[in-house]
Amino acid sequence: MVRHPAVRIVDLTHEILAHWPAEAGFWLARSFRYFPTGSVHVAVVDPGVGSARGILIVAAHEHVFLAPDNGLLADVIDAASSPQVRRLAPEAFGRLKLATPSATFHGRDVFAPIAAELAAGRITPGDLGPRVEEWIPGWLDAPLVAGDQVSGQVVTIDHFGNLITNIESRLLPQAPHSVVLVGGQSIVLRRTYADVRPGDYLALVNSFGVVEIARAERSAAEGLGIARGAPVTVSARHS
Amino acid sequence: MVRHPAVRIVDLTHEILAHWPAEAGFWLARSFRYFPTGSVHVAVVDPGVGSARGILIVAAHEHVFLAPDNGLLADVIDAASSPQVRRLAPEAFGRLKLATPSATFHGRDVFAPIAAELAAGRITPGDLGPRVEEWIPGWLDAPLVAGDQVSGQVVTIDHFGNLITNIESRLLPQAPHSVVLVGGQSIVLRRTYADVRPGDYLALVNSFGVVEIARAERSAAEGLGIARGAPVTVSARHS
Amino acid sequence: MVRHPAVRIVDLTHEILAHWPAEAGFWLARSFRYFPTGSVHVAVVDPGVGSARGILIVAAHEHVFLAPDNGLLADVIDAASSPQVRRLAPEAFGRLKLATPSATFHGRDVFAPIAAELAAGRITPGDLGPRVEEWIPGWLDAPLVAGDQVSGQVVTIDHFGNLITNIESRLLPQAPHSVVLVGGQSIVLRRTYADVRPGDYLALVNSFGVVEIARAERSAAEGLGIARGAPVTVSARHS
Repeated sequence: MVRHPAVRIVDLTHEILAHWPAEAGFWLARSFRYFPTGSVHVAVVDPGVGSARGILIVAAHEHVFLAPDNGLLADVIDAASSPQVRRLAPEAFGRLKLATPSATFHGRDVFAPIAAELAAGRITPGDLGPRVEEWIPGWLDAPLVAGDQVSGQVVTIDHFGNLITNIESRLLPQAPHSVVLVGGQSIVLRRTYADVRPGDYLALVNSFGVVEIARAERSAAEGLGIARGAPVTVSARHS
Repeated sequence: MVRHPAVRIVDLTHEILAHWPAEAGFWLARSFRYFPTGSVHVAVVDPGVGSARGILIVAAHEHVFLAPDNGLLADVIDAASSPQVRRLAPEAFGRLKLATPSATFHGRDVFAPIAAELAAGRITPGDLGPRVEEWIPGWLDAPLVAGDQVSGQVVTIDHFGNLITNIESRLLPQAPHSVVLVGGQSIVLRRTYADVRPGDYLALVNSFGVVEIARAERSAAEGLGIARGAPVTVSARHS
Repeated sequence: MVRHPAVRIVDLTHEILAHWPAEAGFWLARSFRYFPTGSVHVAVVDPGVGSARGILIVAAHEHVFLAPDNGLLADVIDAASSPQVRRLAPEAFGRLKLATPSATFHGRDVFAPIAAELAAGRITPGDLGPRVEEWIPGWLDAPLVAGDQVSGQVVTIDHFGNLITNIESRLLPQAPHSVVLVGGQSIVLRRTYADVRPGDYLALVNSFGVVEIARAERSAAEGLGIARGAPVTVSARHS
């Protein structure tokens, strides 16, 4: 059944890490504002497909989000002023003529058809299930601020090998100089990429507003031997 | 020459194995039904580009398919009730102002322009060449059923390292329990992903209706050291 | 801010080598003619992002091109009969409500919004900055012709491992037989792929009109141990 042939589909990415919803959620929360309000966003990173985990439909920021209830949408929900979170009701499968919930390819058989119905305007989130007040939280601890130090984690590694953390700029120490501790290295936090030679490490607040560790014209991930989840601490430097 | 600027193009995949038309054909046969009837599908995996191999235009299942005559379309044709298979006539090159048949980039210079003309409705398959009754068969043998045993092959390995075979569920032994033999391992065929711990192997009928060997949250291909073409046998288990 | 929701976006490639604008420029120059005239092309390979490098807006061949002033557009400009090259004026940032020039993600924050305004027809290149007569030249030397010999370089390596050079067919020796010297090997230049067995090397003028070194059904890059930038010489063969 072809539900909405005129829909415009944008494939934001298929290069997200499998089995770790935190990364998909990080990028979704930082990308959806570049789409028109009213867009329907489908994000399926789903280690628990086929199990009893639910499906969330979230209306927030004047967009709609569909994802497994596995923490993926934590960043989107936490940043919204009055998110409406719903859980897909079992009755919706029959009413929308979806494949049975035991199917193994929910992206194709469940998420995409629901998104098509929503985008076509034939249903609204309210038709899909009841509002809920509980859902699985994000997989990453919120960064911890203690004195003039903040600790977080590497959330993702981009195409260039840059290490992208969950430490937002508003959490940084209010100090003239800071250092980033990661992988046993101490790297000065700079405000721009300027004045670094090829091969040098640097840390900065990146274009997504979070601390990033980079290596000029090289891969910081390879150079430091760092993977997703690695701890990162930013401290004021007293010298 | 820009032939059909308003056409909607969906890039189904560019991550298909080169030089092995069987894999492209497998996915095409299992994907085209998600597109509206009347869609024109171009599939070019073409080890013989530049040689004398023909080009097929197949009208089947209310869709149109273009591919080299190298076995790629075998699954699409075999599954159709009354496929109309045509071979591109040499005269079409001049009439449609196509690049000469000696060009090395047929996807760009031959297939795409013909697809544009078809999608624009300016020509029909009947304008492209005569119906034929012979074409190159598929590269894989059909699975062999013998008693309560069926033997096939690994057709493709997905992004997660799952081994996907050409053994369709309707060929499976009618037995309460079956085992899958692959790479020297014997793996129980289950009906769902349930109750497997990370690292465990399992076999199941996947969301494309064929037997798949997976490893929970890992790569079965790496774990078993298996590549495309590897033999797979499913047997009823008598215990 | 969503500037042009109805725009049609074609992602030509995201698989281009980072940090080396020559490759992106090579493909852009050989691809833009397949898009309708009036298209706006954005190409961002940008080792100097955040530095003082300018941004070029080029009207040429009845298309518009946006790229960093780092040599990327050299092939496009050099092939145009009367290119109009402009440099983005600082005033444009405020007038178009762009992010500040110090941002690190110019593709998202500067190039894409300008392209949207151009594609929407709300501005023209003339609104973006003054015409200039100087810009950064291409990173590769033009091929050198000396007697019946021409020397160039490997510009890119495709998905199949084919080595693609900047030696255009019009530069080739006017001789009945030529050989290509690359990586210490001497490979006969053929006119087609015909009569080569799997594993054999061959050289030919490819579908983009330049000399390419291939290995039938294998990767020439791996076989020869060759990377981008490697020197390639074509000589007439006297035997």
